[in-house]
Amino acid sequence: STSLQVLFFPDKDVACREHFLTGNGCMKVNCRFSHNKTSLSELYRHMLDCQKTMDVCVYIITCKDLADILSRLFRRGVKIRIISDSEQLRSSGSQIWSLRKEGIPVRTNPSSYLMHHKFVVIDEKVLINGSFNWTAQAITGNQENVIITDDDAVSSLFVAEFQRLWEEFDPS
Amino acid sequence: STSLQVLFFPDKDVACREHFLTGNGCMKVNCRFSHNKTSLSELYRHMLDCQKTMDVCVYIITCKDLADILSRLFRRGVKIRIISDSEQLRSSGSQIWSLRKEGIPVRTNPSSYLMHHKFVVIDEKVLINGSFNWTAQAITGNQENVIITDDDAVSSLFVAEFQRLWEEFDPS
Ligand SMILES: [Zn+2]
Ligand SMILES: [Zn+2]
Repeated sequence: STSLQVLFFPDKDVACREHFLTGNGCMKVNCRFSHNKTSLSELYRHMLDCQKTMDVCVYIITCKDLADILSRLFRRGVKIRIISDSEQLRSSGSQIWSLRKEGIPVRTNPSSYLMHHKFVVIDEKVLINGSFNWTAQAITGNQENVIITDDDAVSSLFVAEFQRLWEEFDPS
Repeated sequence: STSLQVLFFPDKDVACREHFLTGNGCMKVNCRFSHNKTSLSELYRHMLDCQKTMDVCVYIITCKDLADILSRLFRRGVKIRIISDSEQLRSSGSQIWSLRKEGIPVRTNPSSYLMHHKFVVIDEKVLINGSFNWTAQAITGNQENVIITDDDAVSSLFVAEFQRLWEEFDPS
């Protein structure tokens, strides 16, 4: 059976990274972040469940906290690939440069049209897709949605779309 | 059983409005538009299937061809409601003003954060959702995706989200 989850943003409170990432919980007295489930903490959970591969195809990636999850997974041995928008790469706050410096391969669209997708495929199975760019304002400001599904009929199409773009955007 | 469809953009060719909207086909010799199925023609098809209500919650609406479908449905008696982004309303090419003038109710976010959703719910049943804003460049330029489903478990959540925002953005 397939699982399906819908997340809406903005979150009222910011999920505590310490609480949701370490697995040990957060020891801070009067921590100002949320220890309750939020849309962001659910995103964290799905991303941290990744075992082997994560294909990220997201228009804008400026949120350091989400980029940091990629770094953690990469250091853990997860094979990560990123497709993002070439124009947004040049915007201030883009996390793409530091991710690239760590060794994560990144490809971008050569045209002036937008690489406007906002989807992630985890282990070629779980699709995260919606209106949600990886920005701070998408988490606690904007009205956004994310659908998460492991329905093969859907995710396989996004696996193929990622691969198609990955090859199309090969700079070599 | 539920149906599910994924559309990717850009379309290589622009769907012929005459061909896909009238039901009589296009009589033009050497018509420069596509009479074959495209992602846009599939969007047209789902929208034109609408019987009673269409709830449109889309960040940017500048594409005259898509706005025109709303006008047609509205004149046909379909109850249409639009939620869009207040900032984008002021951008040149916004179709919101003419849709409002026809009598279609439109509500927008009062805050400076983005009303960034790009979803439509047809007859409180069929959800159209993805990265796709209603712009010309989203159709034939950008990399975009749209998921269309009549799975109640998903669409009912978007019906509720629309209603929540509709009430939150009530200007009265
Ligand atoms: Zn904490
Ligand atoms: Zn034609």
